[in-house]
Amino acid sequence: MRQFFAFFSGAPRRTAASAARRFSTQLPASYTRAGADDVAFFKTVCGAPHVLVPGDGSDLSKYNTDWMRQYHGATAAVVKPRDTAGVAAVLAHCSARRIPVVPQGGNTGLVGGSVPLSHEVVLSLERLKDVHSFDEDSGVVVCGGGLVLQALDDALGARGWMVPLDLGSKGSCAVGGNVATNAGGLRLLRYGSLHGSVLGLEAVTGSGTVVDALCTLRKDNVGFDVKQLFIGSEGALGVVTRVAIQAVQRPAAVNVAMLGAASFADCRALLRLARKRLGEVLSAAEFVDSRAMGIVLQQLAGTRLPFSTPAPFFFFVELSGSNEAHDAEKLAGFLEEAAAGGLAVDGTVAADGVQARSIWRLREDVSVACSQRGHVYKCAITNTPYLRSRANSRETLHSSPRHPPPPPRADDVSLPPARMYALVEDTRARLEGLGWDPALVVPVGYGHLGDNNLHLNVCTPDRGKEYHARLAKDIEPWVYEWVMGAGGSISAEHGLGQQKAKMLHRARPPPVVQLMKDLKKLLDPNGILNPGKVLPIDV
Amino acid sequence: MRQFFAFFSGAPRRTAASAARRFSTQLPASYTRAGADDVAFFKTVCGAPHVLVPGDGSDLSKYNTDWMRQYHGATAAVVKPRDTAGVAAVLAHCSARRIPVVPQGGNTGLVGGSVPLSHEVVLSLERLKDVHSFDEDSGVVVCGGGLVLQALDDALGARGWMVPLDLGSKGSCAVGGNVATNAGGLRLLRYGSLHGSVLGLEAVTGSGTVVDALCTLRKDNVGFDVKQLFIGSEGALGVVTRVAIQAVQRPAAVNVAMLGAASFADCRALLRLARKRLGEVLSAAEFVDSRAMGIVLQQLAGTRLPFSTPAPFFFFVELSGSNEAHDAEKLAGFLEEAAAGGLAVDGTVAADGVQARSIWRLREDVSVACSQRGHVYKCAITNTPYLRSRANSRETLHSSPRHPPPPPRADDVSLPPARMYALVEDTRARLEGLGWDPALVVPVGYGHLGDNNLHLNVCTPDRGKEYHARLAKDIEPWVYEWVMGAGGSISAEHGLGQQKAKMLHRARPPPVVQLMKDLKKLLDPNGILNPGKVLPIDV
Repeated sequence: MRQFFAFFSGAPRRTAASAARRFSTQLPASYTRAGADDVAFFKTVCGAPHVLVPGDGSDLSKYNTDWMRQYHGATAAVVKPRDTAGVAAVLAHCSARRIPVVPQGGNTGLVGGSVPLSHEVVLSLERLKDVHSFDEDSGVVVCGGGLVLQALDDALGARGWMVPLDLGSKGSCAVGGNVATNAGGLRLLRYGSLHGSVLGLEAVTGSGTVVDALCTLRKDNVGFDVKQLFIGSEGALGVVTRVAIQAVQRPAAVNVAMLGAASFADCRALLRLARKRLGEVLSAAEFVDSRAMGIVLQQLAGTRLPFSTPAPFFFFVELSGSNEAHDAEKLAGFLEEAAAGGLAVDGTVAADGVQARSIWRLREDVSVACSQRGHVYKCAITNTPYLRSRANSRETLHSSPRHPPPPPRADDVSLPPARMYALVEDTRARLEGLGWDPALVVPVGYGHLGDNNLHLNVCTPDRGKEYHARLAKDIEPWVYEWVMGAGGSISAEHGLGQQKAKMLHRARPPPVVQLMKDLKKLLDPNGILNPGKVLPIDV
Repeated sequence: MRQFFAFFSGAPRRTAASAARRFSTQLPASYTRAGADDVAFFKTVCGAPHVLVPGDGSDLSKYNTDWMRQYHGATAAVVKPRDTAGVAAVLAHCSARRIPVVPQGGNTGLVGGSVPLSHEVVLSLERLKDVHSFDEDSGVVVCGGGLVLQALDDALGARGWMVPLDLGSKGSCAVGGNVATNAGGLRLLRYGSLHGSVLGLEAVTGSGTVVDALCTLRKDNVGFDVKQLFIGSEGALGVVTRVAIQAVQRPAAVNVAMLGAASFADCRALLRLARKRLGEVLSAAEFVDSRAMGIVLQQLAGTRLPFSTPAPFFFFVELSGSNEAHDAEKLAGFLEEAAAGGLAVDGTVAADGVQARSIWRLREDVSVACSQRGHVYKCAITNTPYLRSRANSRETLHSSPRHPPPPPRADDVSLPPARMYALVEDTRARLEGLGWDPALVVPVGYGHLGDNNLHLNVCTPDRGKEYHARLAKDIEPWVYEWVMGAGGSISAEHGLGQQKAKMLHRARPPPVVQLMKDLKKLLDPNGILNPGKVLPIDV
């Protein structure tokens, strides 16, 4: 077998030609702005109280602005159909009139995919929130695309099941939006992606055609699997109105441990050992480097390491299973073997839920701690340094009246395991080489080791806009070229939205981009669905 | 929540218009037959020894005839490119000349999807059999589309991993064909479908364009997930040349138990209990009714029930995990609770591999036993009673020089759990009502309870062609209307191929069929890929 990286280095990931292209995030003038007649039509379809327009006294800001308050549209109308037929009627009308439409679930996307660029009609799914059916034998649940994820999980939890998907935004995000963005989240390591968990769906295309692919069977091979087109399409190919999901058994026991490791290579070895020994009950494997951990311990009151041996890396492992005693025994065996093999310099097991939460806090709050320390460059493509600095302001982040406080803006790259930490090291070397003081400019790495999903943050003191802009320029686009060159993904979970659409041509070979454009033309011939999202607007 | 069935009964699964359509399985005359110039071109691409034509002394029967010896083509040339570029060159040429092409992996399909209708060129993937890379950390393996499944599983097994897919045909079938047919198989209950397990692939479209979507990451949301188009497309949209699959840990322990149950409802309750108590280690849940079991015990030497209490249903459960003792304890707990709850009338646990195999034989050999007893009508759409009777002849089945003996032709429907056994009961009632002697005509039911995949066999003595044809006419198409009316699938695993293509319009609503046709046009504009498969040829 050949080595992974050698294999990938030959892949034609991008061309000089595509790198030179320019794109816009302005809505083209050729679209129609919805007017009084259109609004009257929407009211006949949805009922007058379910159509909101500027100046009618409604607060439209929650529809116009994204969760991170980074993107701001100015919708001509918010339209809330009650059912699939309503969605179809609205889209058929908008297609005929070439009125652009942004489908919107919980509006918790992180790449500006669920808010208008300009005057697009916001098609809110919030009234399609029924749980239509649940089968106790198979665990298959059918619900409306506007149902909030937490509500679905609660309904299943009462019966001992759960959604195979968990997100920080679960109290606000909608199931249809989760499907439309192929949301990954905390349970992906164990249960895989929505391409496997979603058994069927119903969607309405950009021309208003209802595609009923609402299969509720685990096995069904009747023709091409058309539902897959809509999973991860970010509302640019259709609007997901109903979803059938394979739920999973809710675990009876959760066990957590934290280990110190001498190197990133040892973290990888711990993961391999965990896969072998913990196999079917492994539900999370995460890592934090010591620089990141140092910032957590320094910034956040009440945090402390559960062991005293110094370690350059920390490895976190979680088990979820049906039998507490069995899982505890498996975990003890794993820890013994890790210690015996010299893979861990120290370690601790949470004895109860309180200890488990304090261990998890050391991992989950890295991002918060970094933001509190000063400025953080996060490895994510942003439009301007201004927006980036706003995104990192805790005040701005937490001021939304609608949503609970979101996590600070997360970067979102995934990499082959062997290259994962090399990105942090190479970033450190590059910045030192470019003359940045390593005492002030500190790249840290942490993330979802089990899913190869890295968070790269570059922490600095607050030194003003110009300083941070100059730093960002020394990191981007180098960092994305690095990720793509290593066979990684510049959007592991969040999608492209309007934020990263301009990167599509560099991240995918021309025939794949062309196929995406052809699919767009096929399913949304008048281009009304989420213009400028996923596929960039050519200048 | 509303009941499952009530919900589905309203779905517009078929229309009177589509039911009246007629289709052909004849290759239209408008296609070009490959001639001497084409063969010369294929030889420059593949090398002369890798192009076979009729009359050159090669035995083409293994390329022309399917595994079940039901379908027979007469290919103009068998072409075996060495790599993706070769596949692309062949397809670009055939598209330009409108020469029809049948992509072929291991040619183990069960619906005639991998053999020519007539003179189509057979594009064999058998030389694309490299394992390109394996990542020990993530378990992601990249291999050629022509690699035999068993070879891939062996390569992974040596490292403690396995393919999340297991099929009876694994010694012959190819990974690219598995992906192209979205093969389900024995591990689906535990690991889900290939739509989740395949992380990336490379495919060549009908016009010869290489679509490089060979991602090896678990999380990657860069644009639409175009690889999904090719998973389950049965070679009608593209040819799968390379695949990246998420392998899983090979279990260290396997435990098996068999229980007697008083009713099908109790089997369902046992499944629900198994999901709860065995959760993460449950790897199979199967059932056999007592009529089927009676035939096994009567026909097959060396079989006996492992317990004496009579039972109308038998439930089989398998656990695969990382710790033998834990799994045995979980199984014991499950059995105790099943007995205490009155869900099982008796039961046994295999003490070793020999006992496990003898228990599994009672489930796995039902189909063989039924075939030995006399004639078997299997719930599958066949073209003619003649072919059906051939398919059930053991002599015909086992005479292939290339393949190991295949299993007898399996029916392939899946149903919502609550309706699963009702199909057997309704078939019994219908046939009695139509005057068939219930002592002679015996419908039996068994199958993959955990995946809702039912095998319905109607067993009769051998009474000659006319008798069996009359019986089949009383079952079909009623049985397929029944399955579709119950929200079931007429092709759970095998796909449509040429056998069931004619059912597509009855099984899917018109907009979905239209979308499939549009996708075909997009990816295979000259219609050269597998004509008459999946999408029927209109008469």
